[in-house]
Amino acid sequence: MTYAAPLVHANPSPPSVDVNALVECIQACFDCAQACTADADADLGEPRIQEMIRCIRLCLDCADLCLATGRILSRQTAFDLATARATLHACMQVCKVCGDECQLHAQHGFAHCQTCTQACRRCEEACHTLLALLSG
Amino acid sequence: MTYAAPLVHANPSPPSVDVNALVECIQACFDCAQACTADADADLGEPRIQEMIRCIRLCLDCADLCLATGRILSRQTAFDLATARATLHACMQVCKVCGDECQLHAQHGFAHCQTCTQACRRCEEACHTLLALLSG
Amino acid sequence: MTYAAPLVHANPSPPSVDVNALVECIQACFDCAQACTADADADLGEPRIQEMIRCIRLCLDCADLCLATGRILSRQTAFDLATARATLHACMQVCKVCGDECQLHAQHGFAHCQTCTQACRRCEEACHTLLALLSG
Amino acid sequence: MTYAAPLVHANPSPPSVDVNALVECIQACFDCAQACTADADADLGEPRIQEMIRCIRLCLDCADLCLATGRILSRQTAFDLATARATLHACMQVCKVCGDECQLHAQHGFAHCQTCTQACRRCEEACHTLLALLSG
Repeated sequence: MTYAAPLVHANPSPPSVDVNALVECIQACFDCAQACTADADADLGEPRIQEMIRCIRLCLDCADLCLATGRILSRQTAFDLATARATLHACMQVCKVCGDECQLHAQHGFAHCQTCTQACRRCEEACHTLLALLSG
Repeated sequence: MTYAAPLVHANPSPPSVDVNALVECIQACFDCAQACTADADADLGEPRIQEMIRCIRLCLDCADLCLATGRILSRQTAFDLATARATLHACMQVCKVCGDECQLHAQHGFAHCQTCTQACRRCEEACHTLLALLSG
Repeated sequence: MTYAAPLVHANPSPPSVDVNALVECIQACFDCAQACTADADADLGEPRIQEMIRCIRLCLDCADLCLATGRILSRQTAFDLATARATLHACMQVCKVCGDECQLHAQHGFAHCQTCTQACRRCEEACHTLLALLSG
Repeated sequence: MTYAAPLVHANPSPPSVDVNALVECIQACFDCAQACTADADADLGEPRIQEMIRCIRLCLDCADLCLATGRILSRQTAFDLATARATLHACMQVCKVCGDECQLHAQHGFAHCQTCTQACRRCEEACHTLLALLSG
């Protein structure tokens, strides 16, 4: 159950970009923030935590940027194109680096890193799509 | 598509409470944070904004507390019961007040406030359920 | 250099509580959020990280709640007493638990935990003072 | 009273950039996040709120990005250069646009927008300085 789609439509200010791409990006950002927060914690509980340190750090960064991006994209009033683009670029960047790191651990059998990889890849792609539409 | 459920299960530290109630509360918190962020913005774009001021303020507060609560509940390592309970209590409180305010505007035909009311009510209930389980 | 004091005074809605206690609590919350974020990271880089796990987790929680509390207290429009009180109570609780944990590590010579202990104690006290004033 | 400087020094991972510029940027980000949160609320209480709508929206965005940036910069473990640069660029961008908008209202006599302009200009400059050092 999600509220992003009806809220985009009910906002008195029309969205500045394709609605489907916007809704997907908002949802991907919030979902990735949750996944990264949970994955950082799962890493913290692993016996061989020394190997998870970079993953924890990048997950914390990724969660912070995904939340900022998800909140900014949820606003349609007085939209500022340059801010949206710079934010999407930063979010895409951290999702790429964090997703790469999580994938390494997923290949070593950590299921929580596998799930987090999916969240990061999806968010990176959603940001990329939106950025392309906003740069057209 | 959500990641909360597989991440709760894959965490090496077992959850401190019923898994289904925990997953629902995590998801409700993140969804309510998104809904309140979007509703505050929708209110801001309404022609009769003067009537929406309390709604904007409470939505901003509710988004902040829902995010903090959703992040704290996403962590299972070294769980602290007293912190979880106080956080859930605060989140439940702001969801109640914000939901009541949104409902007033929903009754005047604002569809975005109707959606936000649903998000707040669901989150309030999920916090209440989890709090009862943690106080058992 | 801080902006909290002039902003409390310039807000068209008068503060709902003693100005000095309010400004100190806002500042203590933001400062503690920064300290806990930095301390969680410093713990993460320690060679004996296994002993820092609870400290990392509590610092992450404390940062999240301090930010939510600092933001909510920064708002004076349409102030909601019950929300403010529940939020302050949760923040005070996590600052107490996190400060206790940091103090243990400070006693073992970790200077970053010593600094974070100070931040948590100051924020706990500021929340306690404000809560007492709001419950009068 | 601030904790950023001692925490940068006590972190077992050395900072990846000039310490003074880093501490100033961390502090500027957290201070600007507080100022923008408070200014958005002050705008919300102004009788002629219709004229403050763009200011409110940009202040909310600016607060979100400043917090993400301040948190990311507070971490020194497993530093990722590309993420830091993209984040600083986004933060600098929103501080510029928000500062410009606040300045317009400061010129019309709103003291809270004057204070917020100062916070945004300082944060924009601190991000610019750090970005130059990280691109050298």
